[in-house]
Amino acid sequence: MSKKYVYLFKEADGDNKALFGGKGANLAKMTSWGMPVPPGFTITTEACTKYYDDGEVLANEVVEEIFNALERVEKDVNKKFGDEKNPFLVSVRSGARASMPGMMDTILNLGLNDVSVKGLANKTDNPRFAYDCYRRFIQMFSDVVMGVPKSEFEKIIDELKEEKGVKLDTELTAEDLQALIAKFKSVYKKAMKQDFPQDPKVQLTEAVKAVFRSWNNPRAIVYRRMNDIPGSWGTAVNVQSMVFGNMGETSGTGVAFTRDPSTGEKKLYGEYLMNAQGEDVVAGIRTPNSIDHLAQTNLAVYNQFVAIADTLEKENKDMQDMEFTIEEGRLYMLQTRNGKRTARAAIKIACDLVDEGMISKEEALLKIEPKQLDALLHPQFDASILKNIKHISSGLPASPGAACGKVAFSAEEAVERVKNGEKVILVRLETSPEDIEGMYAAEGILTARGGMTSHAAVVARGMGECCVAGCPDLKINEKTKTLHIGSQKFTTEDYISLDGSTGYIYGTALPTINAEVTGDFARIMSWADECRALQVRTNADTPHDAAQAVTFGAEGIGLCRTEHMFFAEDRITAVREMIVSKTVEERKVALDKLLPMQRSDFLGIYKAMKGRPVTIRFLDPPLHEFVPNKPEEIKELAGVMNIPVKDLEATISNLHESNPMMGHRGCRLSITYPEIAEMQTRAVIEAAIEASKDGINVVPEIMIPLVGDVKELKFVKKVVVDTAEKVMAEKKIKLVYHIGTMIEIPRAALTADDIAQEAEFFSFGTNDLTQMTYGFSRDDAGKFLGCYYENKIFESDPFAKLDQVGVGKLVKIAIDLGKKTRPDIKLGICGEHGGDPSTIEFCHNAGLSYVSCSPFRVPIARLAAAQANILNPRKKPLDMATRYVEED
Amino acid sequence: MSKKYVYLFKEADGDNKALFGGKGANLAKMTSWGMPVPPGFTITTEACTKYYDDGEVLANEVVEEIFNALERVEKDVNKKFGDEKNPFLVSVRSGARASMPGMMDTILNLGLNDVSVKGLANKTDNPRFAYDCYRRFIQMFSDVVMGVPKSEFEKIIDELKEEKGVKLDTELTAEDLQALIAKFKSVYKKAMKQDFPQDPKVQLTEAVKAVFRSWNNPRAIVYRRMNDIPGSWGTAVNVQSMVFGNMGETSGTGVAFTRDPSTGEKKLYGEYLMNAQGEDVVAGIRTPNSIDHLAQTNLAVYNQFVAIADTLEKENKDMQDMEFTIEEGRLYMLQTRNGKRTARAAIKIACDLVDEGMISKEEALLKIEPKQLDALLHPQFDASILKNIKHISSGLPASPGAACGKVAFSAEEAVERVKNGEKVILVRLETSPEDIEGMYAAEGILTARGGMTSHAAVVARGMGECCVAGCPDLKINEKTKTLHIGSQKFTTEDYISLDGSTGYIYGTALPTINAEVTGDFARIMSWADECRALQVRTNADTPHDAAQAVTFGAEGIGLCRTEHMFFAEDRITAVREMIVSKTVEERKVALDKLLPMQRSDFLGIYKAMKGRPVTIRFLDPPLHEFVPNKPEEIKELAGVMNIPVKDLEATISNLHESNPMMGHRGCRLSITYPEIAEMQTRAVIEAAIEASKDGINVVPEIMIPLVGDVKELKFVKKVVVDTAEKVMAEKKIKLVYHIGTMIEIPRAALTADDIAQEAEFFSFGTNDLTQMTYGFSRDDAGKFLGCYYENKIFESDPFAKLDQVGVGKLVKIAIDLGKKTRPDIKLGICGEHGGDPSTIEFCHNAGLSYVSCSPFRVPIARLAAAQANILNPRKKPLDMATRYVEED
Repeated sequence: MSKKYVYLFKEADGDNKALFGGKGANLAKMTSWGMPVPPGFTITTEACTKYYDDGEVLANEVVEEIFNALERVEKDVNKKFGDEKNPFLVSVRSGARASMPGMMDTILNLGLNDVSVKGLANKTDNPRFAYDCYRRFIQMFSDVVMGVPKSEFEKIIDELKEEKGVKLDTELTAEDLQALIAKFKSVYKKAMKQDFPQDPKVQLTEAVKAVFRSWNNPRAIVYRRMNDIPGSWGTAVNVQSMVFGNMGETSGTGVAFTRDPSTGEKKLYGEYLMNAQGEDVVAGIRTPNSIDHLAQTNLAVYNQFVAIADTLEKENKDMQDMEFTIEEGRLYMLQTRNGKRTARAAIKIACDLVDEGMISKEEALLKIEPKQLDALLHPQFDASILKNIKHISSGLPASPGAACGKVAFSAEEAVERVKNGEKVILVRLETSPEDIEGMYAAEGILTARGGMTSHAAVVARGMGECCVAGCPDLKINEKTKTLHIGSQKFTTEDYISLDGSTGYIYGTALPTINAEVTGDFARIMSWADECRALQVRTNADTPHDAAQAVTFGAEGIGLCRTEHMFFAEDRITAVREMIVSKTVEERKVALDKLLPMQRSDFLGIYKAMKGRPVTIRFLDPPLHEFVPNKPEEIKELAGVMNIPVKDLEATISNLHESNPMMGHRGCRLSITYPEIAEMQTRAVIEAAIEASKDGINVVPEIMIPLVGDVKELKFVKKVVVDTAEKVMAEKKIKLVYHIGTMIEIPRAALTADDIAQEAEFFSFGTNDLTQMTYGFSRDDAGKFLGCYYENKIFESDPFAKLDQVGVGKLVKIAIDLGKKTRPDIKLGICGEHGGDPSTIEFCHNAGLSYVSCSPFRVPIARLAAAQANILNPRKKPLDMATRYVEED
Repeated sequence: MSKKYVYLFKEADGDNKALFGGKGANLAKMTSWGMPVPPGFTITTEACTKYYDDGEVLANEVVEEIFNALERVEKDVNKKFGDEKNPFLVSVRSGARASMPGMMDTILNLGLNDVSVKGLANKTDNPRFAYDCYRRFIQMFSDVVMGVPKSEFEKIIDELKEEKGVKLDTELTAEDLQALIAKFKSVYKKAMKQDFPQDPKVQLTEAVKAVFRSWNNPRAIVYRRMNDIPGSWGTAVNVQSMVFGNMGETSGTGVAFTRDPSTGEKKLYGEYLMNAQGEDVVAGIRTPNSIDHLAQTNLAVYNQFVAIADTLEKENKDMQDMEFTIEEGRLYMLQTRNGKRTARAAIKIACDLVDEGMISKEEALLKIEPKQLDALLHPQFDASILKNIKHISSGLPASPGAACGKVAFSAEEAVERVKNGEKVILVRLETSPEDIEGMYAAEGILTARGGMTSHAAVVARGMGECCVAGCPDLKINEKTKTLHIGSQKFTTEDYISLDGSTGYIYGTALPTINAEVTGDFARIMSWADECRALQVRTNADTPHDAAQAVTFGAEGIGLCRTEHMFFAEDRITAVREMIVSKTVEERKVALDKLLPMQRSDFLGIYKAMKGRPVTIRFLDPPLHEFVPNKPEEIKELAGVMNIPVKDLEATISNLHESNPMMGHRGCRLSITYPEIAEMQTRAVIEAAIEASKDGINVVPEIMIPLVGDVKELKFVKKVVVDTAEKVMAEKKIKLVYHIGTMIEIPRAALTADDIAQEAEFFSFGTNDLTQMTYGFSRDDAGKFLGCYYENKIFESDPFAKLDQVGVGKLVKIAIDLGKKTRPDIKLGICGEHGGDPSTIEFCHNAGLSYVSCSPFRVPIARLAAAQANILNPRKKPLDMATRYVEED
């Protein structure tokens, strides 16, 4: 039997989102539950994959199945495609496995042509409505399917409205619309060199292809990259009988959530517009009514909708985001899906659903997108300051958080200025999908138009980014790059601040304070800790970061980069002296100056960590990073070192490397200058001894970076052990410490069995490992990665999301080989990937002991680790002895 | 039973060189054949390994075994260690599995002390001899075992000779020597803060430890690195009863070869000195007699020696290098080994041994060190020029070949100047093992003293480097850095030329001509071709190199680097225009200029290769390598391109990369600028079509560099295929071409199964693969590799000899995965490792189809490939269809 590519809603399997997409699966479910769903069919994601496999061609067998399904739906609704009496019209919508709101294409009213429009007019006895549908269809088909710019059509409407002296589209008469249609068709003909297609079947196949193509439009690619959605999934297409919200004042359309997507509060939440089609609500051009208002105008429909919403939430065990249309007083459900929500709402809803007995704790944890937590961890404005400052205006609190930056007037401008190190707020009349990269780059988004479900609001919430929407006070001039709010004028040089939780706008730069893990958030985190098997450590180089991470639940430090301490102003001179030393003796003099500083750094960190394990990485970067470049700095250093400027210049130029990333760094430094490792060991051990006097028992873990051959590690280990023994003999104290290595060089992974002979632990340095495995440096990859995304060579940034195929294979090889030699070897990851949920899942499955990430990512990692263990529980439960439990 | 570490010669297994070392094994054999070998014992290589494993400690059990063996030998010779009447003296010599002449330590006359020296004097009735032995022993023990500088002792001898008005050591009387001994002992005491050890057992254990330590002296480490000898092997120690060549005029010592090590001629060849110990011959201080001369002075001994030499050659089936001593008219054999020989001699001896029916062709091939062939391939002076120029002096033709360079006066100076790009001739009074690196760096070696078996001669022959030795005309002043030859004066700025085959010295720079593969050399090569399974291709970027490689037997081009063509003066401007283009159109204009040039490059190469396969790698290096840096060049280019200088400067600075090795290069260029790949494809295909009109049928192999993900290859492949199809359609000719990739990025190796979906062949680019796998760049590794060698972290340069453990593992992974997808995938290597014999053996065993190396390495590779197949024959014989056979 050959594969089936097209299913009626009533045939499809509502649990198979992979095949039918989220929208198709939910339409199937609703249909099966007897809800008022306009009939239709779904073209599967496999048809999309086939379309691309066949070289962007819609196979005949698929076309046949489409027309076959179409015929069956025609029979169900008793209408005919292109019919002059009772024409059948459909909507064509994308629907991928994961919800990608606004990313792909939709075409409404398909099936209209010069003949069937008359049928529609006669049948509905509403010519104005029929011609309105037709002109909308021509416009949408031309734009979405054929790429004729939307603006050309809008211009014509605007001209006509001016001519007629009306303000709203709804004020145009049927005759006006007929004139408009004639003009639209000639725009189409001029652009496409052919007439607007009159055959509805041609319209349909073209529309289906357009939806498939839209799977790979640039904004969909960016969205997938940001949301870890594989390009190989493809989208389904849903072809559904049209129902009309624009059939007059007893018709309407709207969207609603079963709970407040902003706060999580349990109440029906939504908006609708009468005499409108869906696009009017989403685009945010007219300001819609609250869903509650419907109870006053049509209580029966309202009650029916409330009942359906309730059922949908109970059946799907999650907050629902629903689209509906009222056609001449009759309710139709167009789609439902688990609703996007703010982090705060996600947490509250998860807790509430557990308390309501609807789901288990584990299910609750799985409902929260770990990356979203970021929003809860980011700074808020200091309430005490807000007391004394008045906001200059306000809009809708569309996405919570606080943001502050200079005004940017376009997405491109925002991207550009952020690249140059500025922080900006993107200020727009309204946003559209093309703006997505600029929205991502900006600190926050402010729009003049649109509601809580406008594009700006939905996207910002998804990104966890602050957004204030629909502020009518804004007067934006993109050309002159000026923004007026009331009497105040802002240019690209002026700061504004936004509070996404209140909707308030402040005409100045405001300081922020950090978030805390309390309430529902703390409850979720405690559930996550119960469920996970991976430890979560942090990357921290200062006592401040370490303390911050502890408040976020860090169980230790997985990476303390000693070189970051070297850059501090009070020690850089000593560091430089050390580097330009010509003899071991000179170098030791400089190192002696650094020793007390490093010791006190470590002591501070040990104290902040209160006995949790601390992994300290020895000096890693190429030395030239520390030396001065500017003539005056060189002169100063020469003075301090009492050597001729020329000598110093020569030494510095000698440090130059062709490829510093692959140069004299990491353990190579400790091999050529063992005295550096001696000093660092002394600082680590002496600080630990000092901490032990304060009752803090530290077991320092010394990590040797950039090892590629076990002999390198053996050499440096000897230096460390000899020094540590010497220090302990001097202090007459024995303490336990461990020596391990970063696995960040491919060769280390490939020879991990040898390396484990000497290393007590491995920590995967996936930043460098990614660079070396791919053979490109992070600093330079920008020159071509953009082109790689465009051409779908890469779907995601390998520095943000671990490449599990290549780099991951090396990690697995290293784990296998390392365990062969040392079955109880401690394994962690300390690259920036350590805070990426998909990488954390990989680490869990690969059997690592811990992940380590930046302090602000610790809660994300705790949740992601819990999710990984819920989905794929470790056979051997986590040995609690290896988990840090605070004693006080 | 515990391990046995010490064996008498008569107990040891003469076939186990791994355990007893070469010297020990041969002594055991000679003993078993009843040859006159002074008795003794061998301390095994395992004792050496144990010594290092135990932390450089000689274990008690080993010491016990040594004394036990000593006692048994004492009984055999009926002498006693340290005895005042009949003292037993021994020599202590290193002896590794592979011969490392002069690299490690030897101590003679051990067992002498203030008491036993008298016993020796009485017993031999020759006090002068006894005291000479003692002073030599003190000197040698102090220097070799205790590290007291030799020069301190030499100074004292020189002073004494001056005082006594004598020239030769032999003119010193017994009393003189006794005075010398007293002075020597006080030098020792002053340096060591203790008396010279009088206990012979202490002397012995200290000497054994010194030999073990000498395994890791810097020159031994360098020698091993140059000769691929693993550091893990360790050395054995041979303790042998002393016999004395310095017992008067009926005593003597010498070295001899069964065939001429320079030419391979079958005749006994050697030198000896009467009244001397071995060191005197090797050091080349006195000029020795030819071995033939012995027939005139002691025919019986001569005949005995000839008979032994003959037996040894027959039994060992190879030319022998023997040391012997005559003690008061009696012959003793001290050692034999397969002799080092010049490449020319190696070839002749191998052919002769086959013709004499002594060995098979396969055995003959195994006897030739592939790297040695290099010497035969290097330029010689043009005979027609030599006719018209007179040599200014001559020495012994110690190692063949021609060399030309400026005069360097010390090894350090030679190393330094060669680093700076100079070519030098190292000119020395005599060389010593400390000079080895300088000798390696120099083009050739010229010495004033020493014979054909002097240090300079032996080492130069081993290196395949030109050497003229023992030229008495030289007057060398190291201090003023001047050399006088006759009336001519040379400074470091002056050139001399050496002919190592004639021994002639020319006082000027002489041009050279290339070598040819003829005669015995051609015969060996034809045997090699019969025996090997690997194909041998060449790396060639020009028709000239390609033609050269064909004369050396290349079966195709494995790597044609297109970028090398881009640097030519007539095209660099067009290349630069292409690079700084801002638009695709501008870039195409520049590429159009390059197209005809590239096409003619390829046509030339196809013609030179006469139908052999040609693998062309597309543009690889980062673009900034091509752009001008100098202001005047930038100005010129701006003029050509008709753009402002400032714009061009900005473009150029934009090309800067932090780590160009890991930057925008390789296939990344073809992805961002597909028009480059289009132009190169067009040139490749058009040239092939043009060649086919001349009857040359080329199957071009297009190689995409730096692929890390199959999607990169897929993208570029589409560009190549589309262009190739277009060109073939234009020209109305179909031709076969292949598309493959370099495997040079670790990720490519790890995902080779995916990549083989698109690649018809893999070529391992082991230069880059080594860089990425180790995470260090070739350009920068110099900063620490020296330190790595010193600390034995690395034994060899991973860029010269493939790291089989790490990089090799990736290669094997790639082969396995690649074959899984495409069982008949063609596999080659084109890194510089392709000419390294040990890497070739690895490639053979790993199942590659071919190796590709520089033209001058082709014969080496052919021989190494044959050896690999002889040692480990491929189960499946080479498919001859895949071997190129010239048709004309």
